[in-house]
Amino acid sequence: MATLEDIGVSAFINIVSAFAFLLAFALLRIQPINDRVYFPKWYISGRRTSPRRSRNFVGKFVNLNFMTYLTFLNWMPQALKMSESQIISHAGLDSAVFLRIYTLGLKIFVPMTIVALLVLIPVNVSSGTLFFLKKELVVSDIDKLSISNVQPQSIRFFVHIGLEYLFTIYICYMLYKEYDIVASMRLQFLASQPRRAEQFTVVVRNVPLVSGHSLSDTVDHFFQTNHPDTYLCHQAVYNANKFAKLVRKRDRLRNWLDYNQLKFERHPEKRPTKTTGFLGLGGKKVDAIEYYNQQIKDFEKKVMVCCNLVLCQMSLERQKILKNSKSVLPVTFVSFKSRWGAAVCAQTQQSKNPTLWLTNWAPEPRDVYWRNLAIPFVSLTIRKFIISLSVFALVFFYMIPIAFVQSLANLEGLEKVAPFLRPVIELKFIKSFLQGFLPGLALKIFLYILPTVLMIMSKIEGHIAVSNLERRTSAKYYYFMLVNVFLGSIIAGTAFEQLHSFLHQSPTQIPQTIGVSIPMKATFFITYIMVDGWAGIASEILRLKPLVIFHLKNMFIVKTERDREMAMNPGSVDFPETLPSLQLYFLLGIVYAVVTPILLPFMLVFFALAYLVYRHQIINVYNQQYESAGAFWPHVHSRIIASLLISQLLLLGLLSTKEAANSTPLLIVLPILTLAFHKYCKRRFEPAFRKYPLEEAMAKDIMERTTEPELNLKAYLADAYLHPIFHSFQSFQEEEEKVEVRVDKHQVHTASPLNSEPSSPSPTHHVYHPPTSPPQYIYHHSSLPDYIYPPPPPPYYPYHYES
Amino acid sequence: MATLEDIGVSAFINIVSAFAFLLAFALLRIQPINDRVYFPKWYISGRRTSPRRSRNFVGKFVNLNFMTYLTFLNWMPQALKMSESQIISHAGLDSAVFLRIYTLGLKIFVPMTIVALLVLIPVNVSSGTLFFLKKELVVSDIDKLSISNVQPQSIRFFVHIGLEYLFTIYICYMLYKEYDIVASMRLQFLASQPRRAEQFTVVVRNVPLVSGHSLSDTVDHFFQTNHPDTYLCHQAVYNANKFAKLVRKRDRLRNWLDYNQLKFERHPEKRPTKTTGFLGLGGKKVDAIEYYNQQIKDFEKKVMVCCNLVLCQMSLERQKILKNSKSVLPVTFVSFKSRWGAAVCAQTQQSKNPTLWLTNWAPEPRDVYWRNLAIPFVSLTIRKFIISLSVFALVFFYMIPIAFVQSLANLEGLEKVAPFLRPVIELKFIKSFLQGFLPGLALKIFLYILPTVLMIMSKIEGHIAVSNLERRTSAKYYYFMLVNVFLGSIIAGTAFEQLHSFLHQSPTQIPQTIGVSIPMKATFFITYIMVDGWAGIASEILRLKPLVIFHLKNMFIVKTERDREMAMNPGSVDFPETLPSLQLYFLLGIVYAVVTPILLPFMLVFFALAYLVYRHQIINVYNQQYESAGAFWPHVHSRIIASLLISQLLLLGLLSTKEAANSTPLLIVLPILTLAFHKYCKRRFEPAFRKYPLEEAMAKDIMERTTEPELNLKAYLADAYLHPIFHSFQSFQEEEEKVEVRVDKHQVHTASPLNSEPSSPSPTHHVYHPPTSPPQYIYHHSSLPDYIYPPPPPPYYPYHYES
Repeated sequence: MATLEDIGVSAFINIVSAFAFLLAFALLRIQPINDRVYFPKWYISGRRTSPRRSRNFVGKFVNLNFMTYLTFLNWMPQALKMSESQIISHAGLDSAVFLRIYTLGLKIFVPMTIVALLVLIPVNVSSGTLFFLKKELVVSDIDKLSISNVQPQSIRFFVHIGLEYLFTIYICYMLYKEYDIVASMRLQFLASQPRRAEQFTVVVRNVPLVSGHSLSDTVDHFFQTNHPDTYLCHQAVYNANKFAKLVRKRDRLRNWLDYNQLKFERHPEKRPTKTTGFLGLGGKKVDAIEYYNQQIKDFEKKVMVCCNLVLCQMSLERQKILKNSKSVLPVTFVSFKSRWGAAVCAQTQQSKNPTLWLTNWAPEPRDVYWRNLAIPFVSLTIRKFIISLSVFALVFFYMIPIAFVQSLANLEGLEKVAPFLRPVIELKFIKSFLQGFLPGLALKIFLYILPTVLMIMSKIEGHIAVSNLERRTSAKYYYFMLVNVFLGSIIAGTAFEQLHSFLHQSPTQIPQTIGVSIPMKATFFITYIMVDGWAGIASEILRLKPLVIFHLKNMFIVKTERDREMAMNPGSVDFPETLPSLQLYFLLGIVYAVVTPILLPFMLVFFALAYLVYRHQIINVYNQQYESAGAFWPHVHSRIIASLLISQLLLLGLLSTKEAANSTPLLIVLPILTLAFHKYCKRRFEPAFRKYPLEEAMAKDIMERTTEPELNLKAYLADAYLHPIFHSFQSFQEEEEKVEVRVDKHQVHTASPLNSEPSSPSPTHHVYHPPTSPPQYIYHHSSLPDYIYPPPPPPYYPYHYES
Repeated sequence: MATLEDIGVSAFINIVSAFAFLLAFALLRIQPINDRVYFPKWYISGRRTSPRRSRNFVGKFVNLNFMTYLTFLNWMPQALKMSESQIISHAGLDSAVFLRIYTLGLKIFVPMTIVALLVLIPVNVSSGTLFFLKKELVVSDIDKLSISNVQPQSIRFFVHIGLEYLFTIYICYMLYKEYDIVASMRLQFLASQPRRAEQFTVVVRNVPLVSGHSLSDTVDHFFQTNHPDTYLCHQAVYNANKFAKLVRKRDRLRNWLDYNQLKFERHPEKRPTKTTGFLGLGGKKVDAIEYYNQQIKDFEKKVMVCCNLVLCQMSLERQKILKNSKSVLPVTFVSFKSRWGAAVCAQTQQSKNPTLWLTNWAPEPRDVYWRNLAIPFVSLTIRKFIISLSVFALVFFYMIPIAFVQSLANLEGLEKVAPFLRPVIELKFIKSFLQGFLPGLALKIFLYILPTVLMIMSKIEGHIAVSNLERRTSAKYYYFMLVNVFLGSIIAGTAFEQLHSFLHQSPTQIPQTIGVSIPMKATFFITYIMVDGWAGIASEILRLKPLVIFHLKNMFIVKTERDREMAMNPGSVDFPETLPSLQLYFLLGIVYAVVTPILLPFMLVFFALAYLVYRHQIINVYNQQYESAGAFWPHVHSRIIASLLISQLLLLGLLSTKEAANSTPLLIVLPILTLAFHKYCKRRFEPAFRKYPLEEAMAKDIMERTTEPELNLKAYLADAYLHPIFHSFQSFQEEEEKVEVRVDKHQVHTASPLNSEPSSPSPTHHVYHPPTSPPQYIYHHSSLPDYIYPPPPPPYYPYHYES
């Protein structure tokens, strides 16, 4: 077991590496060449268009102002400057609420640390059981400061119990206050938001198909009957599969073209060529650039046909074409004349059959996960069931497939599969490296792809908003961490073994088993906090991966300024991973507060550092994909409550092994009270996160009606909930129209082989609107800017084309 | 352990007693004198006003038509004659759905019995393990037919597992079908109901008190703002404590008067007297009848003052008086112009603060439990929490206080307390009787008052509808039965001991412990079914207690025909007791179906008999207090699912002791699938029982608007939700007005001492309306009919005066 010196060494290493990261960050961030990596948020918000210091050629890439190197930590006070309301308007409520988790951690743990250190360390040290045992047992120095040092049956345990009470009450108080603040922040944020499409819109799933009527008619009829005063219009959802395929093909062709053009630019002496045969074999050699240009032209002609088919849905004749169309999905976005109408529709049951006409708040348009919209009710139930089974299996049995892969991936296996590698493998140096490396590889890969796997699982579950998907993924990840990191480290066995012992132990024995090992694992968790919390957070601010990717892209791909913008993925707060690990820290802090209080200061450093880092990142880097108005807070709250419960049960188990049996009734009361508190909070605050009160809706409606009595809401809402792929076609078409006009002006008329003569007598720029007429004119390719698809603002839009 | 002969004897005794009950019933029911006891429903519905055969004086009391004695079982076919739709219109949907539980039981258990007997009995008998063991172990004959007879590790267990699968699938199928039918019956019933106040009304709790505004103004303002198009009016709820006290006092005085008048009638030679002093001691002797008459007059004068105070709330000037009145509670019944408006308001969140303006469907006026309306939100949370703890304690620790009482109530204790009883107690006969009797007495009393205790607990929980209270009580009673009757009989220990062993056994061991004992307890449960199910149900139809009470009342109290009507309490289906015991039968049937299938035929007899008996009672006797439209069905459904789960787990435990370990994976799948089925059903059908779809509401609104465009809804809804005590005062006042008119005619003007001169110049019959004028005229007591309070229809109205 680790001694104090070991901890000291580990702390030193981690502090040094954390400082190295921070120093590297401080040096890199002031280089103009990295400006887009470390300040992308400012570029996106449009407040910065180029690095600030670009005086001469060298100054464009390297910062020559040596004064700025001396103040390399000044990002910290800068990060603290912005007020919370500024952060909300700058980065959204989600980010502001996310930062509040860290301040909540500080608010909870600073007083707890002081009290625990001042009270418990003297109590534990002076007990001194372990001083006498030292010779026989291997006892770490840390243990002398922990509850292990107290003699069994000691009266001193009442100090620990008292502190557990005190901490529980204090944490509950802080949680209540925080929940109250966040709930009112959310309501205030929603109230102060400008007019947005989702305020008026409800997503209706499982629309029944009435034979002989189009889906659109059915929806119109239903809502005109049941919401006669408030129903405004609806937006059908189309199956975008066909279009997605076309778009993918176009992108592929464009990539080839870009590649060849780049080749040509580098070697202007030699035009790239291509053979037209199958797989590039046989066929005649053609000029590659011209070939792809032609291909794209042909292709885009085809797209225009489809495009028109869709665009005509906005025209008057859409009914004729889309009636009984297979591409209309049984889901629709219904918009209302008022927020009140939408709030009513979202919260009520519409149909006698509760599996039809399911209404929910529409997510923001950018938050919609389009692929899941059309899942029918029965399938949804089955999916949820299967996924919960899979998550259970994943959490408890994930070691089985990994062990299987590991058994395959050992050296003997490798030699059998690839005997020619034997001479290399048999080298002692390489052999020992591989032996140390291979077995862990499968696990490493698994852990690396785990968030992705969990996200896929959540997607299969059928949630229709990206924000919701992320929350679900975060919940799954939390279960995984709880069982495999927390319990797994304490009981030291695979989750499967734990499950087995849980099933075969009595319920009262489980907290004992775990409780006993808890003080012994304190050093492990201290190291964990330092590695994952200190150094990990410091590396987060360095953004090594985006930095490398950005410079690689910059070197090879970027041609225009817009390309450069696209090359930088600012990222966003990664809720599925950060929330669970934060919750794990809360769990550790709360569990160890009375058991081994020396762990708490390490926790404090983490919370403070992470707060600074994430504040900086949120202000300068991250660009949130969606705004859920802090919808994740109920999860944060309930998991801290769960941590409280776990800590109480484990203390109960620990004390029962210390023969402090008379303390059991005292401690059994705590979890019950905590649960009651949780229930109360849930009823008191959670509706603010799930429902939209009519009072609020009506107040906003009335205000709007007085300030903008002439508002044409229907126009405002039109196409707000059109699948983004159609938006791309729309902009495509607008572009088209512009191009066409330009083409007309410049007389660069390039008729397609099929339509060598214009079939439309008067080719105006309205020519693409009539639903039945095929596209007439092919425009010159290079006049189409690169960014037509996907549409630029917001840049990192969650597109999901396949259905 | 019981042999087959023992079971036979027990069956014989129970069949004989059941037949005795049925015979007694058959004889008693055709006596005209008992007509009101056995056919009260027909009197209430007005289709019968006097016994059918009243030819001569003797014939009025005894049935002289001897032919009817020969067909004494003809109530059975009569009970079956009425169709379900007739039952719905005759007795309401609750009763019809209640009967469906029995038919569901028959539908489930008849095929199961046939299959289980045909398949399992041969399998079990031919295994014949127990034949060889017979000499050593005491094995009952029943066990030869059960799973105990199969050798460990036998392949035959797969027959049992297969049947468990088959039964589970069959039961789930039946449950699904039944849920579907009941849900659509409910929706159809609600749709076909005539206009009712509760369709338009929502109960709003936790109305915030705005200082400077009356509650009424606050409510009006809030709903006019947030439901401008649909809000109609509201009905405040008044604290009825003061009035309830007055009413109780009046009732007490009236009782004394009745007693004295009765005394006088029996002994006309001697007028009863009374001394006016304290506790009847001292003071002058007065004529008792005159004294009480005077007292009642004085008192009713006082009541009229209060009464006016309330009645004026219906006048125009109510605002002046009730403004800031302490007697207005922060709860109100809000009525809407349409069912749609009410449905919207009931299902949505109104206020930013989710603890204020809580809206729910209003229960029927007769279903409202008035005392619980004004419980604030925080108190409600605390109450729920405390009651769930108490129920847990009651279920698991109820033996502790009873054992304590028993230890006090033994013979030695009795002798110590009352030494003079020693000679009597020491008699051998009495001693043995007391020793057998006393220890059980406390338990008997406890079990007798248990439903009342559970009902009080539910009331403390704060539910606002009587129907809901009964459902909650039924749930609590079910937990009690499950733990103390089912598990208690199987494990043979107190619930507290069970809890202790559950906490200290591993989760996998518990089903084993229980599973092993299950086949051994089959004989006990067969006897239980015969005693509680056969004889108990047969005694239900005899209605011995109401019969005796009716005849006693008839002899001593009844003076008028209306008194006679009041003397007969028809009762209603006692949901808090019948539902849990029915669910226990389902549990027994499902658990024993594969273990000891011989139990099933006994179950079938119970279901068939109980179906006939309850059908007869519902048609002829019971008068439901409320109509919840089958709202208890989700509970029935989920408890049958729970029975399935219990049976699967116990079979798993049983088989694991039979060393059929390879069956575990097969059986572990079943509970998971059952749970998934339950979740699906919950989502699919439960909304029909909790919410009111807007489609339905709108359809009814539209229909009503076309058929009755001129409807004055406000007048229709006025006072629908007035506290019944004020209704009683209203009828009191109307009576008063009539009396007054009559008094004016007959010139029996008796001015009160205080108002010897009429202060109002023109005493018309409108004189009681002006809010400030005190009552002017005292009416002659005997002209006030007895039934003014409580109002007669419906006769067994759930009044709860205290708040």
